[in-house]
Amino acid sequence: MRGRMTKHDTPSYMPDFNPGEVIIGFGVSKVVDSTHQDFKVGDLVWGMTGWEEYSLISNPQFFFKINHPEIPLSHYTGILGMPGFTAYLGFHEIAAPKQGEYVFVSAAAGAVGQLVGQFAKLMGCYVVGSVGSDEKVELLKKKFGFDNAFNYKKESDLNQALQRFFPEGIDIYFENVGGATLEAVLQNMRLHGRIAACGMISQYNLVEPEGIRNIFQIVEKRIRMEGFLVTDHFAKYYKFEEMTAQYIKEGKITYMEDIAEGLENAPSALIGLFEGRNLGKQVVVVSRE
Amino acid sequence: MRGRMTKHDTPSYMPDFNPGEVIIGFGVSKVVDSTHQDFKVGDLVWGMTGWEEYSLISNPQFFFKINHPEIPLSHYTGILGMPGFTAYLGFHEIAAPKQGEYVFVSAAAGAVGQLVGQFAKLMGCYVVGSVGSDEKVELLKKKFGFDNAFNYKKESDLNQALQRFFPEGIDIYFENVGGATLEAVLQNMRLHGRIAACGMISQYNLVEPEGIRNIFQIVEKRIRMEGFLVTDHFAKYYKFEEMTAQYIKEGKITYMEDIAEGLENAPSALIGLFEGRNLGKQVVVVSRE
Repeated sequence: MRGRMTKHDTPSYMPDFNPGEVIIGFGVSKVVDSTHQDFKVGDLVWGMTGWEEYSLISNPQFFFKINHPEIPLSHYTGILGMPGFTAYLGFHEIAAPKQGEYVFVSAAAGAVGQLVGQFAKLMGCYVVGSVGSDEKVELLKKKFGFDNAFNYKKESDLNQALQRFFPEGIDIYFENVGGATLEAVLQNMRLHGRIAACGMISQYNLVEPEGIRNIFQIVEKRIRMEGFLVTDHFAKYYKFEEMTAQYIKEGKITYMEDIAEGLENAPSALIGLFEGRNLGKQVVVVSRE
Repeated sequence: MRGRMTKHDTPSYMPDFNPGEVIIGFGVSKVVDSTHQDFKVGDLVWGMTGWEEYSLISNPQFFFKINHPEIPLSHYTGILGMPGFTAYLGFHEIAAPKQGEYVFVSAAAGAVGQLVGQFAKLMGCYVVGSVGSDEKVELLKKKFGFDNAFNYKKESDLNQALQRFFPEGIDIYFENVGGATLEAVLQNMRLHGRIAACGMISQYNLVEPEGIRNIFQIVEKRIRMEGFLVTDHFAKYYKFEEMTAQYIKEGKITYMEDIAEGLENAPSALIGLFEGRNLGKQVVVVSRE
């Protein structure tokens, strides 16, 4: 969403927002009228919708039915929606983990990161997350079951921090932040490591992004670095929904939300993401029915 | 070889050379004595050997028999040896090309690059190469059948040069140089592009490598960038040898060598690679039998 608020010279995977337009993003809705054969009045759905009470969806290409309404509906903006599906795709499909591998997740307390760590533990991997506060460090270790976690703001040398937590090196890096973190990770990757590149939030607000000076590590260690986006993989969504809904009902996955009430609080909630104010998935309740 | 002449703090894929040791690299040899069941006296072989007339090979792990002695033996240091196998692996196995795709090769007149371009044409791709002299531009277009080629030293803006040669963008980049070229390529990649990262020669002699500032393009365009090394893929060698020997005998592939006579000329031949003096694969003849 942040990316779409900057004007780009070249087309991005999502068009730029224009001032005055309704902001759009992923949300949960109930169908109140429909002429589409796949969606009936009363259906609960999630997908790309407006920051508004009623939206007219002319092309429901990015809409999915909610098959587990017994789970809190807000979860379909997170663990069962785009962030959850992102964690699953990046970790299981892109990074192709093996039991016992060493996994590092940045922005690990976020909606995606907290799930990647839990998927990694369910696969029998060792997982460490980096976050921006001591409170989040405790959260990862005590609540989400990470093997370890650290506050990157307290580390004067990220390279040394990674050496401390990964004396054997890193097999899989789930990339959410970019910049200096990516550079330190490349230095600590193992042979044949994989980087699932989901986002690079540290760079989005910079006019001149930081340069990555050790990209040669990709050659040296035969690393595969791959960007991905859920919209390329929607065919796998319902398979993911079933798997993850079962994990939730069996209590094998813990999930946290940070809920802002009212559309009027949406801008400050969005800005809060860049200040690290949220704990877990930031949800905005536009309307409770 | 250049990399092994610098002392590294961390282990590389090949150990560093020590002053006074025999330099080793890929070469063609005849077996003059053997106690190994796979190699008999008189066998022609290629593999990792010393810059010397006679080498004792205690572990022939990196040795292959030459099955096509009717082809000039020096070709087994190039098109049928490590560089040829590198071109094949990076293009066919890592980049996974499809007919009609747009392919860019840097250092395209080198031993690997000239073959990547020809493999790309044999696959029905559009291919452009970058090189460091006008003479090499002509060579790529007239001799190796590239669709186009340019002299990067004459381009004040690599980004604009790539836009000119790839108005639709680049699907596959065969990466040999790194630095500013990689940055310009990332800016011009298409969605779901692949970068087969073979080397980054522009960076090897720099104390402080250049930073790549637009690595976010990997996320934005869902690019896969993958480093590779032939030693991980030796099982595929004889399949490659058969395919490429046939192409050579049918005249479908053109190959150039730059031969230096005598071991005493080896150092200047190696230095010449970094000055762009060679045309095609640089071979040093240690001894003609």
